[in-house]
Amino acid sequence: MRRSPEFDLIAAIRERLPPLAGGAAIGIGDDAAVTVPEGATATSVDAIVEGVHFRRPAFPLDAVGHKAIATALSDLAAMGAAPGEAYVWLGRPETLDDAGCLEICDGLAACAAEHGVAVLGGDLTASPVLALSVTAVGHAPDARSLVGRSGAAVGEAVCLTGAIGGAAAGLLLLDRPEIADSVPAGARAEALQRQLRPQPQLAVGRALAASGARAMIDLSDGLGADAEQIAAASGVGIRIEMERVPLAAAVEPVAGASGREPHELALGGEDYELLCVLRSGDLPKARDAVRAVGGQLIEVGRTVAGRGVGLRLPGGGALQGGGYDHLRR
Amino acid sequence: MRRSPEFDLIAAIRERLPPLAGGAAIGIGDDAAVTVPEGATATSVDAIVEGVHFRRPAFPLDAVGHKAIATALSDLAAMGAAPGEAYVWLGRPETLDDAGCLEICDGLAACAAEHGVAVLGGDLTASPVLALSVTAVGHAPDARSLVGRSGAAVGEAVCLTGAIGGAAAGLLLLDRPEIADSVPAGARAEALQRQLRPQPQLAVGRALAASGARAMIDLSDGLGADAEQIAAASGVGIRIEMERVPLAAAVEPVAGASGREPHELALGGEDYELLCVLRSGDLPKARDAVRAVGGQLIEVGRTVAGRGVGLRLPGGGALQGGGYDHLRR
Repeated sequence: MRRSPEFDLIAAIRERLPPLAGGAAIGIGDDAAVTVPEGATATSVDAIVEGVHFRRPAFPLDAVGHKAIATALSDLAAMGAAPGEAYVWLGRPETLDDAGCLEICDGLAACAAEHGVAVLGGDLTASPVLALSVTAVGHAPDARSLVGRSGAAVGEAVCLTGAIGGAAAGLLLLDRPEIADSVPAGARAEALQRQLRPQPQLAVGRALAASGARAMIDLSDGLGADAEQIAAASGVGIRIEMERVPLAAAVEPVAGASGREPHELALGGEDYELLCVLRSGDLPKARDAVRAVGGQLIEVGRTVAGRGVGLRLPGGGALQGGGYDHLRR
Repeated sequence: MRRSPEFDLIAAIRERLPPLAGGAAIGIGDDAAVTVPEGATATSVDAIVEGVHFRRPAFPLDAVGHKAIATALSDLAAMGAAPGEAYVWLGRPETLDDAGCLEICDGLAACAAEHGVAVLGGDLTASPVLALSVTAVGHAPDARSLVGRSGAAVGEAVCLTGAIGGAAAGLLLLDRPEIADSVPAGARAEALQRQLRPQPQLAVGRALAASGARAMIDLSDGLGADAEQIAAASGVGIRIEMERVPLAAAVEPVAGASGREPHELALGGEDYELLCVLRSGDLPKARDAVRAVGGQLIEVGRTVAGRGVGLRLPGGGALQGGGYDHLRR
């Protein structure tokens, strides 16, 4: 591909990225990066596009970089893979100066460094809109150690790794700053952080994979839509009791201030917690393993015979599965 | 990352892609694709963006798909890697219907199938402009079998694998259809093909790697700019005799009809031939190895003490290195 001759900027970016991991023979600056992987690899691609996934300036540039790589790493977490390398395309609009590119890069590099990921290569091109695409590569001793979506069977426990709805609340706070006053400062900060700088649950994902997880997915599209993915791939139905689903602290006040139902936000997606199916007998050791890495595991439902996802409300009603796409701009 | 709920389209795309390679345990449709690679891997990212790298409708949609993956595979060719897997992000504007997405996909799948590449995963998101980013993964028995840019030494032969300038001529033909009549039909078709559907020189790249290639790069930015990359990485100078550089048949007539110098087109980039540095003693066996896979190897210059790239014209003048970026829209 023809590149802009932005060699100085590429050199500056290179300096800001985490140093090469031990296994890499060649990194940024050659035709391709060279690694010598052992065992199985898991590879995931995620993209983030201005005007679709975020808007400037409400969404800071370092958060754009952070979120681009964090969401790709979240897919590796959902496989139970250990994060390894990342490759990044940055599409740069004329409105983004070199300092802006480096801000994005700093956010990306900080998230990569936090999780021990080496950014080994990429591409920098002009683009009418700011966009990043991140390919993340993770590792496991063998393919059997990795957890797909299709291994769930009827009568197993469906678990969540944390409170949800925070990212959707954060999105509403970014879009409608006037509702911020209705939300306690701590809950507000947490919700914004969840929307802007989600944390891939890599250690928790590995603990669950090692504890017998049968199927796993990260909550990107929303609890209903993502549960549907496991249900369809595994050929089971999933019933979730919404009263057992923990909600982020900002969900109630943001829902109240914006005239929405709390469950709408809970199903809004982008929380990047993991949804995991486990045999009931594996639950105690899985809980211990997740706690040992600082996480939590909350049983929220069961797999059942049939198909599709039912989300039961406390009063006895039910929500349909599927994401709540109208929350998205 | 939040995805559009375009599951039907993704299912249709999935059906059109080459089937899973033997080594892949999980392909499209899970959180990440799983492979069990042996030896060393080479990974490259290339992106293609509407309005920057191509314009519709002059650039057909299947060619967009072809070129996106071909340019990523070309980087693997320049390493001497055997092509393996690809991961694709497609950014879809509202102006592109499902049929258009599938046309792009067909072009991409045909190029992947031709080179034995399995498309194992990706991401489909909305985007204000049509864009693709392709991550291509290649393989080699070990890292030493792969050819970087930094291994050239003084006094070695600099070689090209084919005629250049065709892609730049093709770009002018796309932009200025009125000059088409000045160009013989065969040369015109060849130039358009080179611009729209470049061929990654994968077999030739592997033959050169096996024949002792010291440094190698694919011609994306242009002969001068790409030679500069080898010169800088290897710490040598490079002198190229332009009279020894073979030009595509369309270069002379297109240059004449568009009021440009033939050398401008020759240095225009995007030809995706390989530029390779070899010890003189390795030249005969390298030529044989390249011929055995249907390619050619033309000695066009030498590495010299010093730095930078000199492009000597037949009359005794010299061109500066560097791409001719004004050819690009």
